[in-house]
Amino acid sequence: MSGNTFGVLFRVTTFGESHGKALGAVIDGCPPNLGLGEADIQAELDRRKPGGHNASTSRKEEDRVEILSGVFQGKTTGTPIALVIANRDAQSAAYEDMRDVFRPGHGDYTYFNKDGIRDHRGGGRASVRETAARVAAGAVARKLLACEGIEVVGYTLEVGGIGINSWSRDAIGANRLLCPDPAAAKRMEQKLEEVRSEGDSLGGIVEVRVTGCPAGLGEPVFDKIDADLAGALMSIGTVKGVEIGAGFEAARMRGSRCNDPIGPGGFETNHAGGVLAGITTGQDILIRAACKPIASIAMEQETIDARGNPAKISVRGRHDACVIPRIVPVCEAMVCLVLADHLLRQNAIRKKA
Amino acid sequence: MSGNTFGVLFRVTTFGESHGKALGAVIDGCPPNLGLGEADIQAELDRRKPGGHNASTSRKEEDRVEILSGVFQGKTTGTPIALVIANRDAQSAAYEDMRDVFRPGHGDYTYFNKDGIRDHRGGGRASVRETAARVAAGAVARKLLACEGIEVVGYTLEVGGIGINSWSRDAIGANRLLCPDPAAAKRMEQKLEEVRSEGDSLGGIVEVRVTGCPAGLGEPVFDKIDADLAGALMSIGTVKGVEIGAGFEAARMRGSRCNDPIGPGGFETNHAGGVLAGITTGQDILIRAACKPIASIAMEQETIDARGNPAKISVRGRHDACVIPRIVPVCEAMVCLVLADHLLRQNAIRKKA
Amino acid sequence: MSGNTFGVLFRVTTFGESHGKALGAVIDGCPPNLGLGEADIQAELDRRKPGGHNASTSRKEEDRVEILSGVFQGKTTGTPIALVIANRDAQSAAYEDMRDVFRPGHGDYTYFNKDGIRDHRGGGRASVRETAARVAAGAVARKLLACEGIEVVGYTLEVGGIGINSWSRDAIGANRLLCPDPAAAKRMEQKLEEVRSEGDSLGGIVEVRVTGCPAGLGEPVFDKIDADLAGALMSIGTVKGVEIGAGFEAARMRGSRCNDPIGPGGFETNHAGGVLAGITTGQDILIRAACKPIASIAMEQETIDARGNPAKISVRGRHDACVIPRIVPVCEAMVCLVLADHLLRQNAIRKKA
Amino acid sequence: MSGNTFGVLFRVTTFGESHGKALGAVIDGCPPNLGLGEADIQAELDRRKPGGHNASTSRKEEDRVEILSGVFQGKTTGTPIALVIANRDAQSAAYEDMRDVFRPGHGDYTYFNKDGIRDHRGGGRASVRETAARVAAGAVARKLLACEGIEVVGYTLEVGGIGINSWSRDAIGANRLLCPDPAAAKRMEQKLEEVRSEGDSLGGIVEVRVTGCPAGLGEPVFDKIDADLAGALMSIGTVKGVEIGAGFEAARMRGSRCNDPIGPGGFETNHAGGVLAGITTGQDILIRAACKPIASIAMEQETIDARGNPAKISVRGRHDACVIPRIVPVCEAMVCLVLADHLLRQNAIRKKA
Repeated sequence: MSGNTFGVLFRVTTFGESHGKALGAVIDGCPPNLGLGEADIQAELDRRKPGGHNASTSRKEEDRVEILSGVFQGKTTGTPIALVIANRDAQSAAYEDMRDVFRPGHGDYTYFNKDGIRDHRGGGRASVRETAARVAAGAVARKLLACEGIEVVGYTLEVGGIGINSWSRDAIGANRLLCPDPAAAKRMEQKLEEVRSEGDSLGGIVEVRVTGCPAGLGEPVFDKIDADLAGALMSIGTVKGVEIGAGFEAARMRGSRCNDPIGPGGFETNHAGGVLAGITTGQDILIRAACKPIASIAMEQETIDARGNPAKISVRGRHDACVIPRIVPVCEAMVCLVLADHLLRQNAIRKKA
Repeated sequence: MSGNTFGVLFRVTTFGESHGKALGAVIDGCPPNLGLGEADIQAELDRRKPGGHNASTSRKEEDRVEILSGVFQGKTTGTPIALVIANRDAQSAAYEDMRDVFRPGHGDYTYFNKDGIRDHRGGGRASVRETAARVAAGAVARKLLACEGIEVVGYTLEVGGIGINSWSRDAIGANRLLCPDPAAAKRMEQKLEEVRSEGDSLGGIVEVRVTGCPAGLGEPVFDKIDADLAGALMSIGTVKGVEIGAGFEAARMRGSRCNDPIGPGGFETNHAGGVLAGITTGQDILIRAACKPIASIAMEQETIDARGNPAKISVRGRHDACVIPRIVPVCEAMVCLVLADHLLRQNAIRKKA
Repeated sequence: MSGNTFGVLFRVTTFGESHGKALGAVIDGCPPNLGLGEADIQAELDRRKPGGHNASTSRKEEDRVEILSGVFQGKTTGTPIALVIANRDAQSAAYEDMRDVFRPGHGDYTYFNKDGIRDHRGGGRASVRETAARVAAGAVARKLLACEGIEVVGYTLEVGGIGINSWSRDAIGANRLLCPDPAAAKRMEQKLEEVRSEGDSLGGIVEVRVTGCPAGLGEPVFDKIDADLAGALMSIGTVKGVEIGAGFEAARMRGSRCNDPIGPGGFETNHAGGVLAGITTGQDILIRAACKPIASIAMEQETIDARGNPAKISVRGRHDACVIPRIVPVCEAMVCLVLADHLLRQNAIRKKA
Repeated sequence: MSGNTFGVLFRVTTFGESHGKALGAVIDGCPPNLGLGEADIQAELDRRKPGGHNASTSRKEEDRVEILSGVFQGKTTGTPIALVIANRDAQSAAYEDMRDVFRPGHGDYTYFNKDGIRDHRGGGRASVRETAARVAAGAVARKLLACEGIEVVGYTLEVGGIGINSWSRDAIGANRLLCPDPAAAKRMEQKLEEVRSEGDSLGGIVEVRVTGCPAGLGEPVFDKIDADLAGALMSIGTVKGVEIGAGFEAARMRGSRCNDPIGPGGFETNHAGGVLAGITTGQDILIRAACKPIASIAMEQETIDARGNPAKISVRGRHDACVIPRIVPVCEAMVCLVLADHLLRQNAIRKKA
């Protein structure tokens, strides 16, 4: 496996297993003189932290980030920024009886087939815990974007088939599901509670909106910004689909409607989702990720062990009933990483006025 | 722009504008001793060629590929394989009146904002014609995959909202829309004809199925095979959404249903679409791409010119009413490129028995 | 083999064998709006062309470059620039009797051991002819550097152990060996003639001087500019040693002498060769490459054939007696490529004032 | 700066400043199932540790490595291996009076010109201390190479102009300068003592020999193994020249002597240094690095401060008089990293028998 680095110029390398000593990220290529402290990163990690409500895991993750390098007197120096988050409270013993069994919907089977070895404790590298390092790195990218007036906000569009009927920016932070429709949030919570009590889990859809992004970011043809965004979101373990702007609905539109007319004041609609031909238009970027239900469920499931014999499994341990809302900051982080990288790539060829 | 290379070990760099002298690709990293001739590549290019029916452009593209290097006496030597397809029959004059106008739904506006310069002739690098180079390179990847028993087949799931009701492998090649449901294909054709006569266009959905793929391909965490597949498909200009396996539908499933149970004979369902935790399971890989309607339509649209003044535009020239079926081999090609790259990456760490 | 791309942002991919259809390069990442025409590139290729004198091959290489893409109305558009140089006058028949024999000092043995296949005609990809593509790509980089006032000049320091005693910028272009000391140039020519008549060959040393380079280029720690320059020059087949500034002599100096004192007017000496800690100082960059004697000699040598049997070989065909002066523009080209890449990399993080 | 990652498949990213919290490395791409423990890495770090003799710094570096991830039950799992070495005993106060002064021969001036900011404490990222992370990562590569029977040994050829007259493998480990000639080692030590007492410093030459390397490693044309080795060694701050095999001497040989004849028993000489056309021949690889004298000297030197005013500087603190012998394991480490990477790259295309 050599796929743990992301980005061309704003490059992030992450490491760490669920029950190892630590998770972390090294950011190589962050420009110098950017104000940065552990508090900036901690704030994002805290947003990802499991809350106290029923939908979330009861594992007490005290994700404390430590900056090991690359920052001097509150500013980045241009050298690699190493971030480490020690693992605490890992209860590997709970995973002992899964040592030789492949959990359905998990990477156990594929990791074993790939590498002939597997760290079974808590899912190892395939654990959703891996995403903490993404959020930490994304926080640095977010600071860089903020200098350019670019803001990245994620929220919940759908949980277990329950969608939103209204959209309020203020509502997002006001409910635990980060849902822009408070009424829908309540219905989602009820559904989650019901499903959780049955030992089952749910999926959902997250949307990320980028505002303030200048036109011109994206490197056709293969490194189109939407291609990089799609890859970035799909690299989150739980994501099974990604769409931008009108997305799959665009496949059902006519050209005369899907094309966004351009007027002297700019684009009149945004079916493109802020990206045309792989380059940002200057409109808001709108991208959605479909998250599958959490694979670890208490209900008994059929599986096999490493010798191929049938086995039953009921995944105990402390698990969420839905990756939402914890996955929302992860989606934001990946979008931040893509944008920071493309911002620097565009700087490289932009004429100094 | 420096985004014209794809892949880590099986690396493809493409070049060429719609109305320039030539399009082409250089493949670096193809293993030696692979049987390869121009006919192998030509066969794939011919599948992408506009047919004679109404849904397709009347531009007569004689895409003749020439291998400039990397093949000796019918076998690859391990050196870069350069493929060139000369542009013929380009009628740039037809684009003269679009020189200063941004076509809605096209990259004209974004390329100009990115680079401060734009080759307006036929869409330049942003033309769908660029995909010929992908198909040529994909044909080489396909030969490599065939040695391992891996087959990649694409087909049409939906056009203009008309879906399929049956699936026959044999039907795919038997209709011009590459649709596995012959009856649906007919309805799609009618719809296309109708929309075309109105000067409008349609979108659609393509699915690619990979059979014979071994378990173990994919490099978590960022270079998961589904992440790379999603990025690869989204890098095709027309694609606005990508999903794998159950895709967006997974977001509405419960875990107990979405998880694919494993029995002694293997996985019992395939909601995962052949990928778990970013690594292939050995099942068929199933991935879908949503294609927006073609942006070039005869109907008059509102836009602006390079000085920001309002303008009307009616895109003349020879255009398809839908990217389907021509985009199907392009989707296949991108999937082939991703798989060939991951096959080599996995070889690198696989113990020689 | 997947090592045919050079650079991070100013990326060059080359292709082509000595006796194949064509050589070429694709430049991805060249900024838009740079004035560029075939004449710019042809001028550099002509400098690499074999002259008519005894030291050089009698093969008549009409290296005519053709730009296939990336340039519109005399300016780069930011899209990939494909350059092709057709091979003419290749006399593969002359190589028939070497088909199964490994020429000493050549890549025949290693290519065969690497790939299990080899294009024996004229050295295939390992031919010095490959460097034509580097020179073509370097010419584009050179134009970019010229916009920033950076100039790259190479010349001959030594041939067959004969060194220079004087240095005149004007002398360089005034003799066929590109030697800054006209008297030394004459002695070198005599030596070359003598050695050639014996069926033998000579090596030499090339120096490249960069003037006008701003301070601040180079990306520590692994992509130091001197590391990239050393790798770039050593990637030329004939080069066996590289040194910068005082080079190997620095190993024999004391710190008090080797350190370049800094005064209000700048550095007072330049033992560093314009690079400190991998970053340019703003002084001239001075780098030297040691070239081994040409391996193809008429004198009979001992070798083996592909079955391991002893064989005698006398390399006929049209060969130079020394890679100098033809290698000088190749060294310059590689230096140009490194600088162009680092210029863009530094742009990426440089604050827009 | 985004140049802190090395390698294509065996990828190492390092981080850390001299007086920051920690140094470290993340290794991405190490194959699974390789036996690895902290002791393997610690052994190499200890070889780099300053000894107690006069030639070396009196700074007490207790470089204790900690493996944070990627190893489970004594074996690599294929996931990223994060190594951290905490900084202890850093005495930043000693550097207070250098805060605004550029030390001659150091990166102070260039880092400041590059980034507009500089961590002056102990040289920051430009400190030789950075190389500890290389040695740690190299130890992992070395274990991988050992599985293939490849051994990498470095030693001292020259210090302050004093060279060796004999070569004994056993002698290397038996003297503090890692010199294969015990008598020369004594003279070197005397010279070092003398120069140190004058407040000055010396340079030297290191050679690295690779035995047991199979033929076929290296990726022409730009990623030739000698190109990568040269870049790797030149990326060490102290190195100003690199040569392979006959190196600069090859420039003074005739082809008839420089070419290594091939007999049924293999190559009869090794002027090539184990590399032909950028690919290993199967012979020993021999590569040399010229190290400049240490820039930090007690003698007073002329310089300027950040405002351009003249200043005098005498570098106090704890410094070696020569980078030899501490740089020897660093050179070895870089060679190990290059070989491990090329081993995996060759695996990728090697047919499974």
